[in-house]
Amino acid sequence: MYAINETHDPALRSWVEPANAADTDFPIQNLPFAVFRRRGSDEAFRGGVAIGDRIVDLAAAGGAGVFSGEAATAAQAASGDCLNPLMALGHRAWSALRLALSRALREGAAERSKLEPLLVEQSQAEYTLPSRIGDYTDFYVGIHHATAVGKLFRPDNPLLPNYKWVPIGYHGRASSVVVSGHPIRRPQGQTRGSGDTPQFGPSQRVDHELELGFLIGPGNELGEPIPIAQAEAHIFGVALFNDWSARDIQPWEYQPLGPFLAKNFGSTIAPWVVTMEALAPFRVPFAHPEGDPQPLPYLDSPANREQGGLDIKLETWLQTGAMRKAGQPPTRLTLGNASEAAYWTAAQLVAHHTVNGCNLRPGDLLGSGTLSGPNPDQAGSMLELTVGGKNPITLPNGETRSFFADGDTLSLRAWCERDGARRIGFGECSGTIVAARS
Amino acid sequence: MYAINETHDPALRSWVEPANAADTDFPIQNLPFAVFRRRGSDEAFRGGVAIGDRIVDLAAAGGAGVFSGEAATAAQAASGDCLNPLMALGHRAWSALRLALSRALREGAAERSKLEPLLVEQSQAEYTLPSRIGDYTDFYVGIHHATAVGKLFRPDNPLLPNYKWVPIGYHGRASSVVVSGHPIRRPQGQTRGSGDTPQFGPSQRVDHELELGFLIGPGNELGEPIPIAQAEAHIFGVALFNDWSARDIQPWEYQPLGPFLAKNFGSTIAPWVVTMEALAPFRVPFAHPEGDPQPLPYLDSPANREQGGLDIKLETWLQTGAMRKAGQPPTRLTLGNASEAAYWTAAQLVAHHTVNGCNLRPGDLLGSGTLSGPNPDQAGSMLELTVGGKNPITLPNGETRSFFADGDTLSLRAWCERDGARRIGFGECSGTIVAARS
Repeated sequence: MYAINETHDPALRSWVEPANAADTDFPIQNLPFAVFRRRGSDEAFRGGVAIGDRIVDLAAAGGAGVFSGEAATAAQAASGDCLNPLMALGHRAWSALRLALSRALREGAAERSKLEPLLVEQSQAEYTLPSRIGDYTDFYVGIHHATAVGKLFRPDNPLLPNYKWVPIGYHGRASSVVVSGHPIRRPQGQTRGSGDTPQFGPSQRVDHELELGFLIGPGNELGEPIPIAQAEAHIFGVALFNDWSARDIQPWEYQPLGPFLAKNFGSTIAPWVVTMEALAPFRVPFAHPEGDPQPLPYLDSPANREQGGLDIKLETWLQTGAMRKAGQPPTRLTLGNASEAAYWTAAQLVAHHTVNGCNLRPGDLLGSGTLSGPNPDQAGSMLELTVGGKNPITLPNGETRSFFADGDTLSLRAWCERDGARRIGFGECSGTIVAARS
Repeated sequence: MYAINETHDPALRSWVEPANAADTDFPIQNLPFAVFRRRGSDEAFRGGVAIGDRIVDLAAAGGAGVFSGEAATAAQAASGDCLNPLMALGHRAWSALRLALSRALREGAAERSKLEPLLVEQSQAEYTLPSRIGDYTDFYVGIHHATAVGKLFRPDNPLLPNYKWVPIGYHGRASSVVVSGHPIRRPQGQTRGSGDTPQFGPSQRVDHELELGFLIGPGNELGEPIPIAQAEAHIFGVALFNDWSARDIQPWEYQPLGPFLAKNFGSTIAPWVVTMEALAPFRVPFAHPEGDPQPLPYLDSPANREQGGLDIKLETWLQTGAMRKAGQPPTRLTLGNASEAAYWTAAQLVAHHTVNGCNLRPGDLLGSGTLSGPNPDQAGSMLELTVGGKNPITLPNGETRSFFADGDTLSLRAWCERDGARRIGFGECSGTIVAARS
């Protein structure tokens, strides 16, 4: 895991003035990556780094000679239309680029004259996926979510006996992962009917799942597990992730092989990937609650116990079509914290995923699973917030929702703040439900 | 679906004499695709077509001017290190190339002088994956398999209520799909222990699953379902596929989200993809048994009823390490037929997969699921053959097997034969289990 170093110094200020605002997601201590271009242009998509309300165009900055050595190699690897080549380089290259960017963006940096003309306003940018996702795996580390959902399906037996031993995961669909802002079409499908015959039609229970997405750096060879002590070196960073779910399709289809069409109609990832190094000040101890089984040796390491957790605040925000038309801002549904929600750490997910020899590749996506806290106002899905749709929520404008209506926009936000560290944020992960195909 | 045309004429003979042998998998009526190079060379992998014991090097043949028009475009698209560009072109291009190859390889063809020097012996070739698999989905269409496996897990309730309505499928791992011949390392993992604590160690129940893999041609846009009437136009062809499974890891991990580490340590695909057009003479009517629910409208079409089935004979062969050392040939475990095993057709899988708007991409892989027939000697897995390991099988050399031992090689074979049509085959899909990592 990364040591705290000069790039984390909370006193650092940038010559990009908006990066010094107290509430920005993107101060100089963050420096997350995305793949962008000017909106509506036919420019090539290429890698960029957020600073305040601007983006450092890594290809242009590299071309202008801002970087040297390993940082230049890393910037070059981030100059294409996906970050996979950068992700493949590994943490030394990522750190070199981070340090170079931190120094070049600081107040008084000599590189300002070269860099400033190359900055792109985030308000003028559009984004594509940060990586070509070879495989997407979704885990189920939110124990409060697993318990709450389990209660709905199995009131007497909410948490299955394997849950506290196995970081439960399953394979998701990579092709339908879209970047924040892409509309999500309401899916059609089979649902359990009242009699012997299932029904067919548009899902009436479209829901979100508030997750973190871990993007894989260097991979492993097929047959060669990644030991937990090395697992974090295989993680490039973290992005907000919404695993949209059709709660009426899922119960009818999911036995015995798991969710399929209830999930693969679309998943939304945020454009910005916050690196594991940026998160160094926000690592917290990790342990299973007393009395729970301790992790098996392949899932246990001193570093994982000492700082395997991620202190990340998580929010969900809803703006309905009516709110949008009336000019009303989104309303917050929930506020939680990843470290309270997660029963397994990112390193444990990597170690578990590969213990059988399964190979990860750069750019692969591991979803955390829904990160709901123990309290109802920390729920990462409507299924939990409304107790399976039984208790609709009332919005400030008087509308009610059990699940999402067409036109609803659901946004995830997240940030880290701790004493002695500069607040950093994750940007937004947002999607709007559009009507089913007729 | 494809009409029977001059390329299927059983009287056609090739100037590649071994293609005229009665028992060849690759007569001129077949013409399957693979990606190959000379073994041990540093040549680029490129597309080829099997004819007898040779391979037509499509890049070289294209360069020599063997093709024109749409066939030349198709050959060019198959000249790279994966067939995705060819798959994306669609059935008109595939048919044009098939017709051109059929004519150029016939006895007396003028193209012989150009083509013959460019043929590569299959015995001197090595293969890579036929496509870059963006996503791999595994279905569960083998109703006898589903029933037999269901009996082991749920004796009173083997087939779940959704089975006859929903083509059950789940997402598999694309990264660990390997081509025939690649060794398969025995996975380690958690298994259910006798007490409260799971065990950890090498799987003791490594098994195969005899499947057909459907490779996707042109894809669909996210949000736009593929109607069943158009589904077959989105399928390029069929290859043998083995979904290796760890039967002791699976029951402990698979609830509630499905199989994960029990499957993703490796899956083997054959190098040769038999096109849907080559299979035209072997299409058979398809129907659910009388008394069973009829498919919902989105899973039903006249063409699917009239010729949705595939009359493909399927075999599994085992050669243990001891047999190999003693120079003993593989022994056949089972012989079955895809059309007797499958409760859903390939077109139904495509229509179901996309009915919610999920997007398929060229080169994606849809596994059929284990194609076991109704009788024990048609079982596509050791789990069924040995009734969950309770009745080990005895091999000709006296060895017994419940599941696979290190050094065992399991091979799938398949072929089509019908009156009035030339027999065609699928080549071999083979893998050897190697010891777990210590």
